[in-house]
Amino acid sequence: MINQEVLYRGKEPSAIRKLFEQGKKLKEKYGEDQVFDFSIGNPSVPSPAILNESLIALINDSSDHPNNSILHGYTSAAGDMNVRQSISSYLNETYDAKTDANYIYMSVGAAAGLSISLRAIVSSPDDEVIVFAPFFPEYEVFIDNAKAKTIVCYPDYNTFYPDTADFESKIAKNTKAIIINSPNNPTGIMYKEDIIVEITKILKNKEKEYGHPIYLISDEPYRELIFDNERYPFITNYYDNSIITYSFSKSLSIPGERIGYILVNPKCEDKDDLFAAICGAGRSLGYVCAPSIFQYMIPKVLGVASDINVYKENANLLYDELKKIGYHVVRPDGAFYMMMKALEDDDQSFSDRALEYNLLLVPSASFGVKGYVRIAFCQSKNKIIDSIPQFKKLYSSYT
Amino acid sequence: MINQEVLYRGKEPSAIRKLFEQGKKLKEKYGEDQVFDFSIGNPSVPSPAILNESLIALINDSSDHPNNSILHGYTSAAGDMNVRQSISSYLNETYDAKTDANYIYMSVGAAAGLSISLRAIVSSPDDEVIVFAPFFPEYEVFIDNAKAKTIVCYPDYNTFYPDTADFESKIAKNTKAIIINSPNNPTGIMYKEDIIVEITKILKNKEKEYGHPIYLISDEPYRELIFDNERYPFITNYYDNSIITYSFSKSLSIPGERIGYILVNPKCEDKDDLFAAICGAGRSLGYVCAPSIFQYMIPKVLGVASDINVYKENANLLYDELKKIGYHVVRPDGAFYMMMKALEDDDQSFSDRALEYNLLLVPSASFGVKGYVRIAFCQSKNKIIDSIPQFKKLYSSYT
Repeated sequence: MINQEVLYRGKEPSAIRKLFEQGKKLKEKYGEDQVFDFSIGNPSVPSPAILNESLIALINDSSDHPNNSILHGYTSAAGDMNVRQSISSYLNETYDAKTDANYIYMSVGAAAGLSISLRAIVSSPDDEVIVFAPFFPEYEVFIDNAKAKTIVCYPDYNTFYPDTADFESKIAKNTKAIIINSPNNPTGIMYKEDIIVEITKILKNKEKEYGHPIYLISDEPYRELIFDNERYPFITNYYDNSIITYSFSKSLSIPGERIGYILVNPKCEDKDDLFAAICGAGRSLGYVCAPSIFQYMIPKVLGVASDINVYKENANLLYDELKKIGYHVVRPDGAFYMMMKALEDDDQSFSDRALEYNLLLVPSASFGVKGYVRIAFCQSKNKIIDSIPQFKKLYSSYT
Repeated sequence: MINQEVLYRGKEPSAIRKLFEQGKKLKEKYGEDQVFDFSIGNPSVPSPAILNESLIALINDSSDHPNNSILHGYTSAAGDMNVRQSISSYLNETYDAKTDANYIYMSVGAAAGLSISLRAIVSSPDDEVIVFAPFFPEYEVFIDNAKAKTIVCYPDYNTFYPDTADFESKIAKNTKAIIINSPNNPTGIMYKEDIIVEITKILKNKEKEYGHPIYLISDEPYRELIFDNERYPFITNYYDNSIITYSFSKSLSIPGERIGYILVNPKCEDKDDLFAAICGAGRSLGYVCAPSIFQYMIPKVLGVASDINVYKENANLLYDELKKIGYHVVRPDGAFYMMMKALEDDDQSFSDRALEYNLLLVPSASFGVKGYVRIAFCQSKNKIIDSIPQFKKLYSSYT
């Protein structure tokens, strides 16, 4: 009698969440120190000081105001216009991006942004949405919710870039959208300009061939977390029918607060209808507005990010040490994830074995590829150092 | 090519939102003072001081903490367990309610709670959900999103209580749920114990007749806003298959911050599956967790509410003055809404006429009944006083 589809989603929480809960239990048993929880992307670097300072300033200012309910009151459904304008200006200055505040929708994080965007564009159960493995497993949940089909493209395992031949062959007349995610969860790989150009060139040709838009949804919660000062190519500059879903969760270390935005490229076909459909989808799913105090905070923290050097140091340290032990690992360009080849074919079984050494590693099957585990290295440096002997023991257990 | 259903929801924002936006324009033209915006339920009473104090204390405590990302980090998807336990204890002590923290899901406001609950229980496009007119128009949006049919029951216009004979006749084998809302938006009427007993008695008989649960969803954002110290009958004490959706928006004057909960009665049939389906529905719709700082704030403010005497005074003042002018108004028991009979059959046309006098009144058609307007009197007392001459002019224009 209950909805079986969502019951399944509730009973089978993501492998990541499951490990996260297992980790909690291990910590109770062995103590926090003895457990190496690489399961969840909870940023470990404190938020920049200006974030908490801005929140306090907003609260104090509002308390002085004759009606302090403004700070905590409803904003327009798409978000406060001043906030949206400041985001648009920031993006235009930083990326020469030609965004427009009228096509920015403040969302309750990027997950909401994705679920809303997909609900807005999927119009038939025959619609297909292409994702590139390895991919964030919730993509499939949101595509399901929008009642479309998920089509998986496979990577070039040397680079973890999309296999563009496979991609091209999988675009069909029912392809409604593709989702790209760079810097990527779970690989930490950033798509450089050449691959963005290649992907969008294929898409443009296919749009012409089929005579309808194929939306490129770019999921960018890690855009500010790129090592080595590389600049991420801003998608709207490369492809007209594009939508960006962004979250401040990772760059500002506030994943629990749920604040982000959906940006519709002003060059999108039917941009006004698309934006209206996004507002309508948000409304239908029960989103009234994004948390107001976090909206008002945004203009004060644009361009600020948590100290990513911590993640970079962790990445280098872990990469070097794991290499030394003998593991096959792929060096990340950003974010706080790294893929490591499992020491047996079955990544679930490898992850289970790792648990015996109090190492929480997410099996790659949940990201749509086999034979790897994801290591979320958003941890203290000491935690990384202390984990190395455990990785050694795990390795030895296979030899 | 875009989803037409949500496009419609985006292009046709609720009458309330539409008036709210029209009000903004009128204010720009005539000045804030000259516009009497009774359109939206944005609480006018400042949040209790302890709310902002608690937020600042949480931020300061977290800044002292070696890893301040805990405050702003992910919680479990259903919410922080300590928070859920404190809510459960509070409800059990206050209402002798026998709730259980394991069946409380922290939601991004009551709108999210409703959309999620409906998504969780609706399992067939033949499913029907009964609402009682006049009703909050978004109910229909959320029922649509869950792909069920909305069945409207009509009120007794003398009391604005449900017409129970009409209700009984509309329950059918496909009835999956009913939604009640008390104190009610748009009438401000509270269902006293006798009507709750009558409604649940009918439901229990129909459950027996059809051999399956009929869920009672009780939407209670105004539970703490009851004048005259009346106690709202706590639904789980009256009916087993019940779900409460709650929001702190109105009681704490924080509607922009989006924090509330879904409470599943531990006596519900298949309570574990139902709760899992709620978690799964939340996940599918893109909800990751409710804003973390507002979760952590809740235990410090349970049982505290904004000063409802302000609303009570407004209610009495407005009721008396409108009566004096000659209007037919229905005295509210709580919340901050009042229904007033339009002076012509067409409530939209009456609302349009009111706009000429800078009075923003929501036509009742959007709540599923004809011939009334809703007055949201969450305003300063002076605003209410200043509006009276405008109401007089509006009245005169009809005589």
